[in-house]
Amino acid sequence: MGLPVVGMVGGGQLSRMTHQASIALGLSLRVLADATHDSAALVAHGVTVGEHTSLEDLRAFARGCEVVTFDHEHVPEGLLEALEADGVHLYPGSAALRHAQDKVVMRERLAALGIAVPAFTPVATVRDVEGFAQHVGWPLVLKAATGGYDGKGVWVVHSAEEAADVVAGGIRLVAEQLVPLRRELAAVVARSPYGQGAAWPVVETVQSGGICVEVVAPAPDLPEELALQAQGLALRLADELGVVGVLAVELFQTEGPDGGSLLVNELAMRPHNSAHWTIEGARTSQFEQHLRAVLDYPLGATTMTAPWVVMANLLGGDGAGAGDGDLDRRLHLLFGRDPGLKVHLYGKRVRPGRKIGHVTALGSDLTDVRARARAGAAFLRDGRWPPGTAQP
Amino acid sequence: MGLPVVGMVGGGQLSRMTHQASIALGLSLRVLADATHDSAALVAHGVTVGEHTSLEDLRAFARGCEVVTFDHEHVPEGLLEALEADGVHLYPGSAALRHAQDKVVMRERLAALGIAVPAFTPVATVRDVEGFAQHVGWPLVLKAATGGYDGKGVWVVHSAEEAADVVAGGIRLVAEQLVPLRRELAAVVARSPYGQGAAWPVVETVQSGGICVEVVAPAPDLPEELALQAQGLALRLADELGVVGVLAVELFQTEGPDGGSLLVNELAMRPHNSAHWTIEGARTSQFEQHLRAVLDYPLGATTMTAPWVVMANLLGGDGAGAGDGDLDRRLHLLFGRDPGLKVHLYGKRVRPGRKIGHVTALGSDLTDVRARARAGAAFLRDGRWPPGTAQP
Repeated sequence: MGLPVVGMVGGGQLSRMTHQASIALGLSLRVLADATHDSAALVAHGVTVGEHTSLEDLRAFARGCEVVTFDHEHVPEGLLEALEADGVHLYPGSAALRHAQDKVVMRERLAALGIAVPAFTPVATVRDVEGFAQHVGWPLVLKAATGGYDGKGVWVVHSAEEAADVVAGGIRLVAEQLVPLRRELAAVVARSPYGQGAAWPVVETVQSGGICVEVVAPAPDLPEELALQAQGLALRLADELGVVGVLAVELFQTEGPDGGSLLVNELAMRPHNSAHWTIEGARTSQFEQHLRAVLDYPLGATTMTAPWVVMANLLGGDGAGAGDGDLDRRLHLLFGRDPGLKVHLYGKRVRPGRKIGHVTALGSDLTDVRARARAGAAFLRDGRWPPGTAQP
Repeated sequence: MGLPVVGMVGGGQLSRMTHQASIALGLSLRVLADATHDSAALVAHGVTVGEHTSLEDLRAFARGCEVVTFDHEHVPEGLLEALEADGVHLYPGSAALRHAQDKVVMRERLAALGIAVPAFTPVATVRDVEGFAQHVGWPLVLKAATGGYDGKGVWVVHSAEEAADVVAGGIRLVAEQLVPLRRELAAVVARSPYGQGAAWPVVETVQSGGICVEVVAPAPDLPEELALQAQGLALRLADELGVVGVLAVELFQTEGPDGGSLLVNELAMRPHNSAHWTIEGARTSQFEQHLRAVLDYPLGATTMTAPWVVMANLLGGDGAGAGDGDLDRRLHLLFGRDPGLKVHLYGKRVRPGRKIGHVTALGSDLTDVRARARAGAAFLRDGRWPPGTAQP
């Protein structure tokens, strides 16, 4: 067909759903997976098993790909630079990606750009933490500078003693003010090498135990001015950092008059959990958009397909029915109850708390849409309807 | 995951898009393809290359599949029965599928059920054709009893001489009245082994040279009574014939008062071109629904996601730019012009007249939606905008 070959490093669900989107574009994603049972490796045609920390494996994989992109941020910067020196088209490139890999680098750059972030400082000792606490008070937040996700690598510490336990781990840390928040938001955009940008509506992300459990699009009751500010900020960041592909900007909305203000919490430069709702909920999904961006196609329309879209993550349960075998039976019951709910399973083995899929509900009544998404995810996890679920 | 394994015989675009849908359901379609470059074989993880006319190949493929389904009707009936005797779950089964394989069997069964079909008779000689012409007049239609598609195996003959040329081909034929039509419609439904049925809105299918070029959902100006009649007829047929999976009923809408009447033209028991619009245009696509049906999951909602949806088939062009290499450039220009258009490419080499993909437009103004779908398909085929295309 003469169409380009795209490779994605990492075999998780983001690769899986990107492969799914690539099929419509006439492509077939190539995946560098850790293992043959990785989520994307189960469904993609072109799977290479190899280490994303091995330059040799990365080089062999990049050969024959016109573009290489990522399902995660874990390829070491030195290897990214070596691939670029080879002439590999990495999207996003190392110069952008370092801002999603290293929280210190990101916060310093954002502060330099005049973009609001929570008060922060790199810390190496308990004394450093205590010094920072004199400015922001206890409790405060310690974060691993690199490698954290889904609440891992984040510690809320209430005292020097608690901080000492974290510091004793010996990893690079950044200390942050514990911001009094109203809620968390995400502004997700895409940018192409040509420089075109496109933003989806700003969403509310609901966290539990450091894990995103629910995304509501658009964020309810968000003043138009704040929504535009968030989108503009994300588009500006994509441009300033030279991002190619999807950029997710996780935001804190603080308490305050006129809806409070926005602080940037995290960046991700890849398809992101906060935009899974776009598969059915937007004219162009984040997975198609990511491919369009890295191939430098003009970006697709980001308009919503329904007034409200709610995505609920499906986490592995820990009850009696947590085994794999029961999922098929639960799917039958769920589909029978809610024929309009969209279910996405990642082909991953069920483990308590692990993201094994998500469900999406769409409609014109937020209360109803939200209840349907929550009930669907809860039932697949627990095998019983949550209390208060309306009878069908 | 404990989820079932589905195998599909045939590696065309229907398998390709069914694989795409299977990913969300936590599955990975297994495909029996003729060749490694088949449309679905390029994107599916589990590909077996083999002959759908070889019992040995079919048996080897069926081993390890909980369910076997089809991308086409070309597996000989005797082999289907042999597989069923082995205990393979074939959906649809041979007893249903023969009505999609053999036009004589289908028309006789439908006539017996009291369902209106064009006047027909099996013919073996020119004398048979002449005898039939005394009832229905010339011209009339000769069709291959088995194996025809996309206008192949269909001849409009105006005289005994023309009929003689077709009869000389030595294939089994059925003669049909050339019905004076208003237009063609399709009623597409799905049915599960449990017996649940679900119908999408009835669509208009626009043909050119025996090939469907455009599908409009819902069929414009179709009286509600006729739409319900078409849906009811398709659901009844699915039930009477014991279809499992998607059933497409191609219909003629005749001239006459109150919208005329409906005659059944063809049946297909698999995902069908007339329902490609459901990928974006309905809450549940025909590919997901086919999987839900063959797995005996409750069927998904068939509600539309926009007031009007138009799908235009993308046929290979025969102009100077018909080569493969130009498609990528044309995609750039098309995406730039219409960011809301959805493009589906099948990974097939471009040949004049071959279906290599389709485009789908959605919106609230039929004239606009139709013009966008037509312009998109025409531009990808010809490399130029059709006359009268509005400036962006």
